[in-house]
Formats: sequence, C-alpha cells, structure tokens
Amino acid sequence: MRISELSERSGVPVATVKYYLREGLLEPGEVLNARESSYGEGHLSQLRLIRGLVHVLGASISQVRQILSIIDTPDQSPLEAMGKATSSLPAIGESGDSAAADESQRAAHLLERLGYRFDPASPTVAQLGSALALADDVGIRIDDDHITVYGEAARRIAQADFARVPWADPRAATTFAVLGTALYEPVLLAMRRLAHYEIGLELEADATEITDNDTTTGAP
Amino acid sequence: MRISELSERSGVPVATVKYYLREGLLEPGEVLNARESSYGEGHLSQLRLIRGLVHVLGASISQVRQILSIIDTPDQSPLEAMGKATSSLPAIGESGDSAAADESQRAAHLLERLGYRFDPASPTVAQLGSALALADDVGIRIDDDHITVYGEAARRIAQADFARVPWADPRAATTFAVLGTALYEPVLLAMRRLAHYEIGLELEADATEITDNDTTTGAP
Repeated sequence: MRISELSERSGVPVATVKYYLREGLLEPGEVLNARESSYGEGHLSQLRLIRGLVHVLGASISQVRQILSIIDTPDQSPLEAMGKATSSLPAIGESGDSAAADESQRAAHLLERLGYRFDPASPTVAQLGSALALADDVGIRIDDDHITVYGEAARRIAQADFARVPWADPRAATTFAVLGTALYEPVLLAMRRLAHYEIGLELEADATEITDNDTTTGAP
Repeated sequence: MRISELSERSGVPVATVKYYLREGLLEPGEVLNARESSYGEGHLSQLRLIRGLVHVLGASISQVRQILSIIDTPDQSPLEAMGKATSSLPAIGESGDSAAADESQRAAHLLERLGYRFDPASPTVAQLGSALALADDVGIRIDDDHITVYGEAARRIAQADFARVPWADPRAATTFAVLGTALYEPVLLAMRRLAHYEIGLELEADATEITDNDTTTGAP
C-alpha cells in the first residue's frame, strides 16, 4: 500500500509516518520510484504499536525506540523482555518528581513486611514510595491492611494477565507482555472508578431505606 | 506562622504560595502589617491538599479550584461530592484523545453485559472505551472473562476504600473520597507491576525446574 493508505488505516497522519521513518522507528518501504514506496501489513502493525505506545502510554520517541528494541531482541524469554520493558515505560503518575531515597526505602520495608519478592532498584518501588508519601502528606495515609487488599487484587489480575500470554510465539508474547503491562492500566483504573460509583449507589439506597424505616417505625 | 515557614513545611515554594493566594485557592492570612501576614494549620493543610492535586493528579489550576469548591460545598453527602469530583479529575491515561462515541457505546455494552450499574454519560465510561479500542488496535484485545477479573478485583478494592471513609466528619469524608479516588491509583498500578514481577519470578523458577528435570530424567 502507499503511504496515504498506511496513514488512513493506522490513524497516523502522513507527516508523522514520515517522521517515524526518518527516526528509524519504522523500516523503509519497498521503493517503487524516486517519490513513492510501498508498505505492507508489517508496517501497519508496527505503526499501530507505535501509536499505542505514544498515545496511551505517553511514551516519548526515545522510550518508543527502547521498547521496540526490547521487543525485537532475539533469544530472550518474554519474562526478561517484560522486566526490561517495565523499566522503560513512563513512570506511573503524572508527577515529574523523582522519589526520594527514603520514600523508596519505606516502600521496600512495606513490601518486605507484606512478604513480597521485589527488586529494590526497580522504578516501580520508587513510584510506590512517592505515592505513599503523597497520600501521607495530604492526610490520607494507607495502612498495611488496606494495601494488602490492593496487593491481593493486583495479584489476581496479574495471574489473569499471565494466563493470556501467547507463549508459543516469542515475539507476540513479548509484545503482549510489554503492551499489556501498560495498556490495561487505564482499564483497571476505570473499573475501580466504576466500582466506586456502584458501591456509592448501594450505600445511598441503604441510607434511603434507613431513613424510610425511621419515618415509619421510629427505629434508629 | 510566616509565609516562609508555611512554604518550608508544605514543600511549596514561596512564589507558588503567593500565586495560590492571588488565585484565591488559599484564603488570605491574618494581616500583621503592610508587608506580612500570619498563617495557621488550616492554611498548611489546604496547601498540602493543593500540592497533592497538582503533583499527583496533574490537576490544572482550574481543576484544583473546581475540586476545592466541591469539597467546600456544605450540606452534601460525601457520595454526591465523590461523584462530582470524579468527573472533575484529570482523565485516566495520558492521551489527549477524546473517546469516539462508538467507543463509549462499546464500553457501555460491555458493562451492561457484565451486569454493572453505571452512568452512560460518565467520562469514566468514555475512557474505558478508549482504552479498550486502543488495546484492540495494537492487537491485544481484552475479552469478557479477562475484564471480569479486573472488575471483581476493582470491586474488592473499592469496598476496602469505602470502609475507610471517615463518615462522621463530612468535610474529611469528602476530602478522603476525592483524594482517595485518585491518589491511590498509582498505588494500585504499582502493586500490579510488582505482582507481574513476582509471578514472572515464579514462572522462571518453574521453567528452570522443568529444564533440570529434563537433563536428569529426559521427561518432557
């Protein structure tokens, strides 16, 4: 297909496709003549992948390059790729702040207390530390029991994620691992906000029922 | 305390404190003389709240203003406040894209199928729709069973969140509801990434064990 069709089918403007080509994120097409090249389905899927990384994850071009190179590394297990890719993903949260060492350490202590196995140098531990510190700062500290509920729920989700990794095809498995780590995050957050709404409705219904009973029976 | 101490204790630079005062996000202090005012613990906690909204949620000044006015509205239930505040929070995900109508609709169909009660006009439904569409685009579609696991885990978490709302103090309850909705999100994402890492370790250990058995027994 021509670049115009590639652009239309991927939803990426022609100028941006050309930019990705210049940056080497996209392989050149087959040259037809001095002014035109032809592109295949491989280009389309690569372009959709880049679009996902940029638009959903907010990845920078250099992060995209890094993640693509992880996906394309031969002879690695999807697990290795996943670990490397998670470190390359944009940090959780929109803050530009980096976590202070004592915040990371506090998160590490918490994880130890809860019996987690983790890499203390992982950026995720630092991000957890920042989030905990900020919750403290604004007066809504998260206690151990509360975070245990988060941890157990997260584990069930992670098990369901792993059950869907297409292990038989290493490149597909790696792509799934890298993209799924991050692309499913907004899904999880949306489901939690929706659950808040539902539970809110239930509590309101309960409150109304209690009020109704009050007026008829005078019960507390 | 003077503005310098307020700045030091809140971690917000003096110039930013002055900006919040000009913008009316922070009440003026008690005037001591033409050049100095005195601030109290209420100013400090308000400033920490604003800092949390800006730094963790990436809220704009106009979003901060809106959320503060929701928190300060008298005679409302924390549930009402929470619903209003969730709509004012920055959207999930870092994409500037708004969801197409058909994406929202697809999310609404999914939620109906799964038996959720929801507000079809909620921005969360639209954001869920965008996230699902993007996962499709990059070839990692989320099936109904998979999203059911997310939904059930999210519900357990939301129940634990609600169990901690300080209902007896309406302003504290509202603050908790508004901030907790968003401040705990990075915690949840971090816990999921950590769970991926742990499960990855377990799978690698299993794989090594199978390989070891192979060399000694020749079993597949």
